[in-house]
Amino acid sequence: MSLDEFKIIETYFKKPFLHAQKDVILGIGDDAACVCIPAQERLVAALDTLVAEVHFPIEWDAYDIAWRAVMVNISDMAAMAALPKWALLGLTLPHSDSQWLERFAKGLQDALQSFQTVLIGGDTTRGPLTITLTIQGLTVQQNLIQRSGAKPGDIIFVTGALGAAALAYQSWPKWQHFLPEEQAQLLNKFQRPIPRIDLGDILRQYATSAIDISDGLSADLFHICEASQVGACLEWSDIPVHPLVQKYKKDTAIAFAISGGDEYELCFTVNPKDLPAFYQTLQSSHKICHAIGFIEADPGLRYRHNHILYPLQPEGYQHFK
Amino acid sequence: MSLDEFKIIETYFKKPFLHAQKDVILGIGDDAACVCIPAQERLVAALDTLVAEVHFPIEWDAYDIAWRAVMVNISDMAAMAALPKWALLGLTLPHSDSQWLERFAKGLQDALQSFQTVLIGGDTTRGPLTITLTIQGLTVQQNLIQRSGAKPGDIIFVTGALGAAALAYQSWPKWQHFLPEEQAQLLNKFQRPIPRIDLGDILRQYATSAIDISDGLSADLFHICEASQVGACLEWSDIPVHPLVQKYKKDTAIAFAISGGDEYELCFTVNPKDLPAFYQTLQSSHKICHAIGFIEADPGLRYRHNHILYPLQPEGYQHFK
Repeated sequence: MSLDEFKIIETYFKKPFLHAQKDVILGIGDDAACVCIPAQERLVAALDTLVAEVHFPIEWDAYDIAWRAVMVNISDMAAMAALPKWALLGLTLPHSDSQWLERFAKGLQDALQSFQTVLIGGDTTRGPLTITLTIQGLTVQQNLIQRSGAKPGDIIFVTGALGAAALAYQSWPKWQHFLPEEQAQLLNKFQRPIPRIDLGDILRQYATSAIDISDGLSADLFHICEASQVGACLEWSDIPVHPLVQKYKKDTAIAFAISGGDEYELCFTVNPKDLPAFYQTLQSSHKICHAIGFIEADPGLRYRHNHILYPLQPEGYQHFK
Repeated sequence: MSLDEFKIIETYFKKPFLHAQKDVILGIGDDAACVCIPAQERLVAALDTLVAEVHFPIEWDAYDIAWRAVMVNISDMAAMAALPKWALLGLTLPHSDSQWLERFAKGLQDALQSFQTVLIGGDTTRGPLTITLTIQGLTVQQNLIQRSGAKPGDIIFVTGALGAAALAYQSWPKWQHFLPEEQAQLLNKFQRPIPRIDLGDILRQYATSAIDISDGLSADLFHICEASQVGACLEWSDIPVHPLVQKYKKDTAIAFAISGGDEYELCFTVNPKDLPAFYQTLQSSHKICHAIGFIEADPGLRYRHNHILYPLQPEGYQHFK
């Protein structure tokens, strides 16, 4: 079954978002969308592209492809402690397959709605399977958290155990040697990342800088250091490593967790004078973050293991490398 | 020569836009960009994807590819009578080629700067050559021009002679039978479209609906009719046809001009009671628009030729057709 471009847009992308929020003045179906930004708020915008066979296996359920496309974008909002609001979708498809589109649209809808985000526009074209999503959100200017805000002495935190997404990616599709419940865990980490929008309130109060761990902890922490013109020292044994990485990577687990990408946990820094209030807020909101090191004036990355300092090369996934 | 992803962004896309407008709070280089929307303004946003070999020949000068990507997006702003302000670029490249990137970045920069638009973010990925641009602009809500505003009796206008872009597209790359000056004209229409942002002031004052002619006049006018729940009647001999189309398509010139896409002229409607003031404004601002027909309550398209009415099928380029 084949549908033309306009029917695809009408059936799968327009109807589910018709009853949009009242801040959407004009949604899908015109030359452009139009939304209302409250006077005291600032617009935050990011764009991410996912290419078949580069960012996801082409044989994935289209539901999961759409989910991933939404979540990697919303993760950029999480790293800014911004609230995601509106999305634009660029969908390039080799052919029109209504079954695939239905699954894709369902995944897109479920993922966007789980963060109260509305699809307001986009473009459907023919070509190799590629998904580009633009996400637009809101923040208040005084709460804008940049990569450049880290200061020497700041404590470095991550929001969760690392390495499982990279383990899933590295092992795919040969997952036979994992137990069934482990496979489910990995699949979840791999296909259904949940960006940490839930930490927005806490970041807005305490973070001096933040980034999402999409390239890998060392690579992303290095981005913070470069933007802030500082360096960082990690406490090797404090890096939270996912239990499956500990089990399957044994001696190399921490190194693997540090360089593994596609996490969508956050790395952020907190001024040490704010630590007591920060820990109290974490506790009262039932959130867990892990202190993993501190910012130093000396540029570059290093780690401390058994009281000895070692240099740390920022490693992570790079296209064109 | 090969550059890694971060150097590409730094060298080609960040530096030229560093001295951005003061409404850009945070530009390229963080998880997301942040901009300030004036209180009385509304955000207008559109996204367009260009796929190599679908939307442009892969052997084109990268300067022209970038130019086109920018202009088809800015044309969406023109159709809303909005002012383009900020762009996000999703660039998918098969490999990193610094010569290609330099040309692309130059075209992008020139095209954006010619409309005072700033690149604020994006994503560079590896894959089949695809360019997705998101453009964000501003309008005032009471001036928002939608496709749905056409009323029976409104006069239909187009902003320029039609068909040359389609002629260029259809003939490419075999242009030997055109004279050298004709080839230059066609190449210009094909590779260097100039969206009609210059008509924004006039549209905001007089247009009841508007659309850019990217799919073809009949297809795009039909979009207006569907959105406005009206029909339209065109005056066959009033359609402005590009001289080269008249010369090379002869008897079929008008039909060709009506269905030819990739024009980036605008089609819009004006309430007949506003016509005297509208024409006066056109004249005083030295702009030319062509009245080509009128809106009717009866749905569908038709045209009048030698006092006889004929039905008109909306035709234009569709992916997946």
